[in-house]
Amino acid sequence: MKNTFGQAIAMTIVGESHGPMIGAVLDGLAPGIVVEREWIASRLRLRSARGEIATARHEKDAFRLESGVLEAEPGRWVTTGTPILIAIPNHDTISKDYTRTGDLLRPGHADYTAYAKYHGYQDIRGGGHFSGRLTAAVVAAGAILQSALGEKGIRFGTHVLRLAGIDDVRLQGKTEDELSEAVDTLRDRDFPVVDPEREAPMTDAILRAKGDKDSVGGILETVILGLAPGLGEPFFDSVEGLLAHALFAIPAVKGVSFGDGVALADMRGSAANDAPVMDGESLRFRSNHNGGVNGGITNGMPVVFQTVVKPTPSIAKAQDTVDYKRRENATLALKGRHDPAIVPRAREVVNAMSALVVADLIAQRYGTDALGPERRTR
Amino acid sequence: MKNTFGQAIAMTIVGESHGPMIGAVLDGLAPGIVVEREWIASRLRLRSARGEIATARHEKDAFRLESGVLEAEPGRWVTTGTPILIAIPNHDTISKDYTRTGDLLRPGHADYTAYAKYHGYQDIRGGGHFSGRLTAAVVAAGAILQSALGEKGIRFGTHVLRLAGIDDVRLQGKTEDELSEAVDTLRDRDFPVVDPEREAPMTDAILRAKGDKDSVGGILETVILGLAPGLGEPFFDSVEGLLAHALFAIPAVKGVSFGDGVALADMRGSAANDAPVMDGESLRFRSNHNGGVNGGITNGMPVVFQTVVKPTPSIAKAQDTVDYKRRENATLALKGRHDPAIVPRAREVVNAMSALVVADLIAQRYGTDALGPERRTR
Amino acid sequence: MKNTFGQAIAMTIVGESHGPMIGAVLDGLAPGIVVEREWIASRLRLRSARGEIATARHEKDAFRLESGVLEAEPGRWVTTGTPILIAIPNHDTISKDYTRTGDLLRPGHADYTAYAKYHGYQDIRGGGHFSGRLTAAVVAAGAILQSALGEKGIRFGTHVLRLAGIDDVRLQGKTEDELSEAVDTLRDRDFPVVDPEREAPMTDAILRAKGDKDSVGGILETVILGLAPGLGEPFFDSVEGLLAHALFAIPAVKGVSFGDGVALADMRGSAANDAPVMDGESLRFRSNHNGGVNGGITNGMPVVFQTVVKPTPSIAKAQDTVDYKRRENATLALKGRHDPAIVPRAREVVNAMSALVVADLIAQRYGTDALGPERRTR
Amino acid sequence: MKNTFGQAIAMTIVGESHGPMIGAVLDGLAPGIVVEREWIASRLRLRSARGEIATARHEKDAFRLESGVLEAEPGRWVTTGTPILIAIPNHDTISKDYTRTGDLLRPGHADYTAYAKYHGYQDIRGGGHFSGRLTAAVVAAGAILQSALGEKGIRFGTHVLRLAGIDDVRLQGKTEDELSEAVDTLRDRDFPVVDPEREAPMTDAILRAKGDKDSVGGILETVILGLAPGLGEPFFDSVEGLLAHALFAIPAVKGVSFGDGVALADMRGSAANDAPVMDGESLRFRSNHNGGVNGGITNGMPVVFQTVVKPTPSIAKAQDTVDYKRRENATLALKGRHDPAIVPRAREVVNAMSALVVADLIAQRYGTDALGPERRTR
Repeated sequence: MKNTFGQAIAMTIVGESHGPMIGAVLDGLAPGIVVEREWIASRLRLRSARGEIATARHEKDAFRLESGVLEAEPGRWVTTGTPILIAIPNHDTISKDYTRTGDLLRPGHADYTAYAKYHGYQDIRGGGHFSGRLTAAVVAAGAILQSALGEKGIRFGTHVLRLAGIDDVRLQGKTEDELSEAVDTLRDRDFPVVDPEREAPMTDAILRAKGDKDSVGGILETVILGLAPGLGEPFFDSVEGLLAHALFAIPAVKGVSFGDGVALADMRGSAANDAPVMDGESLRFRSNHNGGVNGGITNGMPVVFQTVVKPTPSIAKAQDTVDYKRRENATLALKGRHDPAIVPRAREVVNAMSALVVADLIAQRYGTDALGPERRTR
Repeated sequence: MKNTFGQAIAMTIVGESHGPMIGAVLDGLAPGIVVEREWIASRLRLRSARGEIATARHEKDAFRLESGVLEAEPGRWVTTGTPILIAIPNHDTISKDYTRTGDLLRPGHADYTAYAKYHGYQDIRGGGHFSGRLTAAVVAAGAILQSALGEKGIRFGTHVLRLAGIDDVRLQGKTEDELSEAVDTLRDRDFPVVDPEREAPMTDAILRAKGDKDSVGGILETVILGLAPGLGEPFFDSVEGLLAHALFAIPAVKGVSFGDGVALADMRGSAANDAPVMDGESLRFRSNHNGGVNGGITNGMPVVFQTVVKPTPSIAKAQDTVDYKRRENATLALKGRHDPAIVPRAREVVNAMSALVVADLIAQRYGTDALGPERRTR
Repeated sequence: MKNTFGQAIAMTIVGESHGPMIGAVLDGLAPGIVVEREWIASRLRLRSARGEIATARHEKDAFRLESGVLEAEPGRWVTTGTPILIAIPNHDTISKDYTRTGDLLRPGHADYTAYAKYHGYQDIRGGGHFSGRLTAAVVAAGAILQSALGEKGIRFGTHVLRLAGIDDVRLQGKTEDELSEAVDTLRDRDFPVVDPEREAPMTDAILRAKGDKDSVGGILETVILGLAPGLGEPFFDSVEGLLAHALFAIPAVKGVSFGDGVALADMRGSAANDAPVMDGESLRFRSNHNGGVNGGITNGMPVVFQTVVKPTPSIAKAQDTVDYKRRENATLALKGRHDPAIVPRAREVVNAMSALVVADLIAQRYGTDALGPERRTR
Repeated sequence: MKNTFGQAIAMTIVGESHGPMIGAVLDGLAPGIVVEREWIASRLRLRSARGEIATARHEKDAFRLESGVLEAEPGRWVTTGTPILIAIPNHDTISKDYTRTGDLLRPGHADYTAYAKYHGYQDIRGGGHFSGRLTAAVVAAGAILQSALGEKGIRFGTHVLRLAGIDDVRLQGKTEDELSEAVDTLRDRDFPVVDPEREAPMTDAILRAKGDKDSVGGILETVILGLAPGLGEPFFDSVEGLLAHALFAIPAVKGVSFGDGVALADMRGSAANDAPVMDGESLRFRSNHNGGVNGGITNGMPVVFQTVVKPTPSIAKAQDTVDYKRRENATLALKGRHDPAIVPRAREVVNAMSALVVADLIAQRYGTDALGPERRTR
């Protein structure tokens, strides 16, 4: 199950950066779900590279749904219940830039580990199967899932909490109304910050790094709204464990934390515990230090987590490295098209992975048809 | 696969805190592995509660291996290759303390989420299946795995990197010799700190919290030595994703990060990249900011990660809560036996979960017999 | 996942014939299901060895539910929703009979293949982990599942369709009323035949084989009533594929077929197709040649299948074999206690495996709580 | 994991008969395996429809390898170790024939069960995802696996053992030399019979059925040569269980049996047991009634099994059925292009599924690289 994740709903990732295509198979999704071409395209645009803060590679990310849907009208499909193959052809592939790298291992990349694993048979052009480009297929699949989950009142919002040392407003600790507004705002905001005034300093920092032939990292914060209590399992299939498993699949992610995150380490129990309280007939929690999860299971509060993204390893600066074939030390200055900051673009990949985990948990708990228009109750 | 984790080697967790027993099934382990009773017992002792800084519950943690082994001589078993059931009977269960809690939801615990998931049918005595006590079975299973991996030169060391705001020496960034020495030292150190002088201030902080009827949290840092390059997969079954999945199964864990962890967010690519360098005939990395993993796959450097543990939710201080049956607000002051700090005890659970992931990856890569004395080469 | 089967509901098998115990873990079952001790015991009795047609080994099959249930009153438990460990201690283990066999490979058994797989580390006493005795745990777990499924109107009936060349009445082709009656009759019939007059000749044939120090095989036929249409998947997770996978786990099973079974090979399409027909408002099929499954998915008709059981390999007759340690030819006449016919006893194992597959499919389709008393509809 | 099968090596099936394409993802295959275009094409030709005994639909079955391989030279690829997506575009799709069927349920097909499962959202054109056409992708994937296994000395041969009541020579019971010769002969024989004289009467029977607007069924017999002893698991992951699980995924398969198959039911233990015997230094069995598997594990003898294929449900003869939308009885005479006998064409699908199971078992036992040219021994 190497490239597949999920139980009731599963995603399989295929493709190489400079092969014919990249793609994802989404299996287990209910029949009858409406999928809009424009919605998927909009999610891909948020992930794709634009402007001077991003890579110069301009894939159109024109995706095709090759199975598992029927066209209801132009630009609108309906799921059939069978596996959906999303294919995104590769067009703009200047392999030249990459082959020039030849056998020089790119520091911070998977070049050496790919040799260790695949014994030299791997496709090295543009990172091959390790390329961040494969996350475009994840985003397209995630768009379908977000669409289905949206119909059930479940929404995802991710913003750049921190980039190059500059902070955005923290969502953890906000009221549900504030979170709801933030999620709405983030849905189509090109540069995903809650406070729009943080965009300029962050962009400046990115451009400075680019000017220095360098790159920056950061932290994303995600909010999931609308989850009923009772999703997830004690121990292995905790909501935290499943989300983390999927999030670490995103290249460059090096940390995942929930609720107050790392700050919980310095808190006392009396401060970290969230007190339940009756709110009329319904139970709520006075605070959300635990990020919506207790004992691995959702408690009905917003699920909140942070994703640490390391700086883009591809930099134009000269770096010491090794020529792997010759087994000798060398120097490498990358010439390809590279992002000085993948943090903002990663936001839709985080939403997509989160949607995969949530959709799977709902399908497990409420059954195959739970995300579709018809829910058979036997 | 709710309570099962792993592919080639899998662990299944069973039991309730106040039921007849807790246990774990370990499936897929090679035949011919020697297992010492005393070694397993020593790992359980490190996890168990002792002294005034811990809970007053004194389970003997007398475990039984009920299947999958044959006794070679007293205190020494050899695995047969079939599933190993480790059973730990529950003896010292004063359910009185817990039933007194009745329908008052313990803040920070899974009491409410258990209701949401199990509709009131769950075993609520002592946390039932959610109890941290179940990690004793994980530790025993992990001891078997650590024993097998040790024969292949793979070692695990975990220490309290931070507790109640007090730091131990950080292992990330140390030389491999220093790491090797630290791992040796930690193996049998009761209070797991690298610098023994940190024990007293940490213990003081725990006792102060206890005096305040409160609890503290912290961060564990883990080092895995001896891993060959090439373990793990791009995307979903990355080493980071698998470890995080397993680690979040440990109650109270709220964050997992690798290498320089959260600090990577503020670094530039030129600082975060680890440069490969030829060291005679063999390739090494000059630094280990990525914690031994690139593109989801081990690179031959020590795997280093941090685990954030929230403060123990069980505290003696009075807390606002809800009586779930009556659906009314209430106050709760817990009377049971509780740890003011589970951080030090969690160290062997982290080692056990890490051993599970590593053993599974090795069995996938090198086959069923890889951890046994005989490696069939066809 | 070697010893585990199932997705939403999974069973894990542990233990050795002459170790401390055998057992099964049942994970994923809904909370709130009532489990009667006497019902489980009755299923175990049907599997256990009695009379002169069976082995002389008399395990009491006294089982313990070690987790995942709470006792509601003596002899009655309620499931909690967490994994259920069923343990059956081994008492009556005369290893002497078996060790006398020593290194002589028992023909028709797994003795040689166990060597090939486990390199001599396997527990050879009484077949170890390969022993048919482990199916007692499967039967106990299956009893719990049959109990839960019975509440939803789903029933299982298995009879000896053929034994030593003697046929019972075939159920395939009968009306649903006739099937319902047969299933009711079979539930507690010691010797599972539909026509009670077939018991005597079958028993005679068994005794004749025993007199000849030999054994007999046969075919079981199973009917599952009450399945809604729509369970199962096209291709890999077809109802047929899942049932066959589980059924071949039963030692001595060598064939599985559905509906008209092998006879379908000689039929023409016009005879094998089952015509749908409106029966008032509801759709039914005029015949059931396909055994209740089309395209891998249940069609609402009874699911009917046949299981071929080879003759018990353990026979008292002298057989040519090999002494594996000495690598020389030898002769073996088994002295242990062995069944001349396991076919009748296997009937409850077939029901148990069928219940596992059906319960899993229902939990996948209708969600976690589908088999419990409460069905959350979100 | 609905459309995915396998653990270390897994196959995922996607596509619909009249959608843009059908395909399969093969994940987990070792890097460095050479794949010849012509070999894959030859396997597809054996599956495809030709002549008057088959359907008139003439897909070119022009496949594309979209990922996981690199072209070494024209017509020759080498695997990279990452997932291989095989895509076969659909061209010759006359949906007219099928849509004319409209809401009339085709007897013997999955039309009704698809409604029950997918609530009318399924793609009904040409059977959609249920179409036998999807097995072309399975055959292409299986060709890659057969190619890799062939390098390790493992070969697959399947012939029509029986068709419309006419028998071919039975392979079960033959010597290994005879089996080896038969497997070689069958590799490229268009009509897969061992005795070429059986082709004419079988073809006649097919044409007679076609003349009668009807169809025929039959039995395939498969031999797998070159398997080392020790593959498979006791209980759930028995070789028999895994093979049966995969074989029942083939549309129209209704029975699977091993070794002497159904005949074992009537045998006595003394006749059914295979006696091991020393053959110089190596152990062999005097007979192979158990079809190469004992206790779920290969014993080094040829694995032999039978697959029962029901008659093609698509027939031109008028049949009673139901108009599902109008909920009224109706009559249907199919006009599309249909095979009067899929038995001969199914032979390569059986080989492909067998290769999937065998490759997975080998990868589990000997590790990731076992099927590649390099076997790392750590």
